[in-house]
Amino acid sequence: MTVELISVGTELLLGNIVNTNANYLSVQCAKLGFSLYHQVTVGDNESRLSDAIKTAITRADIIILTGGLGPTTDDITKETLAKVLGRELVMDEHTGERILAYFKKIYSQNTNKYLPEGLAVITENNWKQALKIKGSIVIDNDNGTAPGYIIEDNNKIFILLPGPPSEMIPMFENGMIPYLKKFQDKVFLSRMVKICGIGESKAETMIMDLIKAQNNPTIAPYAKNGEVHFRVTASADSEAEALALIEPVINELKSRFGNYIYTTSEDVTLEQAVIELLRRHGLTLSTAESCTGGLLSGRIVNVSGASDVFMEGFITYSNNAKVKYLKVNPDTLEKFGAVSEQTAREMAEGCAKVSGCDVSVAVTGIAGPTGGTPEKPVGLVYIGCFTGGRTFVIKRQFKGNREKIRDLSVVAALDLVRRCVLETYGL
Amino acid sequence: MTVELISVGTELLLGNIVNTNANYLSVQCAKLGFSLYHQVTVGDNESRLSDAIKTAITRADIIILTGGLGPTTDDITKETLAKVLGRELVMDEHTGERILAYFKKIYSQNTNKYLPEGLAVITENNWKQALKIKGSIVIDNDNGTAPGYIIEDNNKIFILLPGPPSEMIPMFENGMIPYLKKFQDKVFLSRMVKICGIGESKAETMIMDLIKAQNNPTIAPYAKNGEVHFRVTASADSEAEALALIEPVINELKSRFGNYIYTTSEDVTLEQAVIELLRRHGLTLSTAESCTGGLLSGRIVNVSGASDVFMEGFITYSNNAKVKYLKVNPDTLEKFGAVSEQTAREMAEGCAKVSGCDVSVAVTGIAGPTGGTPEKPVGLVYIGCFTGGRTFVIKRQFKGNREKIRDLSVVAALDLVRRCVLETYGL
Repeated sequence: MTVELISVGTELLLGNIVNTNANYLSVQCAKLGFSLYHQVTVGDNESRLSDAIKTAITRADIIILTGGLGPTTDDITKETLAKVLGRELVMDEHTGERILAYFKKIYSQNTNKYLPEGLAVITENNWKQALKIKGSIVIDNDNGTAPGYIIEDNNKIFILLPGPPSEMIPMFENGMIPYLKKFQDKVFLSRMVKICGIGESKAETMIMDLIKAQNNPTIAPYAKNGEVHFRVTASADSEAEALALIEPVINELKSRFGNYIYTTSEDVTLEQAVIELLRRHGLTLSTAESCTGGLLSGRIVNVSGASDVFMEGFITYSNNAKVKYLKVNPDTLEKFGAVSEQTAREMAEGCAKVSGCDVSVAVTGIAGPTGGTPEKPVGLVYIGCFTGGRTFVIKRQFKGNREKIRDLSVVAALDLVRRCVLETYGL
Repeated sequence: MTVELISVGTELLLGNIVNTNANYLSVQCAKLGFSLYHQVTVGDNESRLSDAIKTAITRADIIILTGGLGPTTDDITKETLAKVLGRELVMDEHTGERILAYFKKIYSQNTNKYLPEGLAVITENNWKQALKIKGSIVIDNDNGTAPGYIIEDNNKIFILLPGPPSEMIPMFENGMIPYLKKFQDKVFLSRMVKICGIGESKAETMIMDLIKAQNNPTIAPYAKNGEVHFRVTASADSEAEALALIEPVINELKSRFGNYIYTTSEDVTLEQAVIELLRRHGLTLSTAESCTGGLLSGRIVNVSGASDVFMEGFITYSNNAKVKYLKVNPDTLEKFGAVSEQTAREMAEGCAKVSGCDVSVAVTGIAGPTGGTPEKPVGLVYIGCFTGGRTFVIKRQFKGNREKIRDLSVVAALDLVRRCVLETYGL
């Protein structure tokens, strides 16, 4: 099956947002074994959108449209497609009820005087979202008010999705993939090997022979802030056959990368792997953050159920807070500075002592853009981890802007926790 | 002038990389006052690329192509465009010399064993990069081997850029913008009005008359997690004239939205506006987070120089931590629960007392997906803010997944701090 992707939104053409939807949907199409040959972006403009749809019909079997399903007059995707297909828009009672329930719920639960007014009133234009193209399958939106749609017309399939990724992704996964799977002629199966602690080039070099020899399964590497993921994909007539093709490759990767691999599950993030490891050993965790300022704990708390393991965290942004809460020695700060091995060590140890947790991790560094010196340049980060009576401290020198340095610090801190626990308590 | 953007690369269609180039070039086109109506992505496939170029010629004055200029046989952008234009490829001696110099330099500087093999040898296919379409202007690549090109043909302009952003962006800025500036016939100026605390539909309804009457300047709304931004853009013969057109509209927006507007600067984020407001009043800030788990402080620390204002934060994920650090009364937790107005109030007040900061903000809620009950559903969040001897508490009911609920909570907490400070200390 051939897919064409049409992203609708003037904000994309003005560059107000990056089109991450196109990327996500491309990955999904590849996984489904569909061929995506064209991605097209047009603004909220009827004639250009109409032309884009007509062109897509000539060259694709499945046309996925994202964006332009919202309540405002700018949102014209549904209306334009209806015209192209010569179908009328009709009220969808089910969606109407959902919109009513959504606003009633918000209204009933927000009664204080600081309530933003806009949330308490259902404006006329919200009802526009209850209109559907006649004959479409409506897919509920559990994260917003605009539903998605599947329309079968003249041997073509149209998939309409809302623009915000937080609404689009769960809808695609829950509502669209089960529908699209029936158009797969081969079974495509992929497994992910996720690695932390080795750079992309090095990781790729370590398995270059496998990558070069690849055919089925294929091995596609890609780098994510501080991590490297390898996707191993096989196509076969059955899931069992595909799995049989994949397994030896996964085993080979495991033997080459050892415990640099933190998971082989697609859905498991680094923070989940860390929380899971701690839970397995019945260990509790606390954090002490300076330059990351809460991003590390924020990422740990991404994991639903982290509360079994993660107890508390300190954001000791000022030196005073490091002394007051983590009992860092003021002389240490004076002599070695806030960004130093000694301070990272004392932060981790103090955090463990104060919190009473089994594992404590501390981060201190210079995220920039200011604050660097020749001896301690921007990007210098110390991370300490205390557990089982020992403190491990690593020094890292990251490159990039403030955001990147902080993200890489978070990944390095999570990985340090993982390694310290593995070393101290085993798998 | 009308621009069309063609991104070339099978890796984009497979979703191996996100097309950030399209975003960057869209922003640049808007700044130059060019109208970008179509972004198209095709793979490294001659017939589809050829079709995309032919279509672009029919609807744009300037066609920007990125990617496919590298040394491998996959890279066919230059070759395909040459065929479409009916021009031959000729050797560019200047580029040939640069390629030679580039490899000599790399070879002399890299003697360690990790040197990627390909870089130590000038393979035959590298010379392919020294070929240019006859009559093109060659733009040197200071960050790689593939040069860029400008080709004027039959009243159309073709801009060819390499795919890697680290090569493309400096080349566009240094080599392409000076050339493209001569095609600007108007000055384009835009200002951003950023609003927090009103939903998108409501905000749009409040200025629907202005949006409907828009021509020059135009008003474009777009929603971001918990915020609404309006971009006001004018075109005129001079910057002063454009500004004169924009100003009355900005003033009208200000009078309608009042202090729902947190900034009119494009570059200012909500967290920056909050930090700036606190700094103006000489106030210090501390945070106490439960469900957001550090995301609020992490976002505050996004602001370089936040250390003048933000002192410390507590992540009191467990009830025990709420009692131990924030002195929340265990009876309060027992009687009303961790997610309650009373707990949010005591967290904010305790945080202020312990930290000694002028403003303290506390967040407690149920981010889900588990932990909800009929009385306290997933998405229920209480936010408290203590300042100037008073505590303000708001209750919000958010919808969405765990990530969205937490993001919206962070925005609501930042906005509450802003409103409380405005109410207590003025502008």
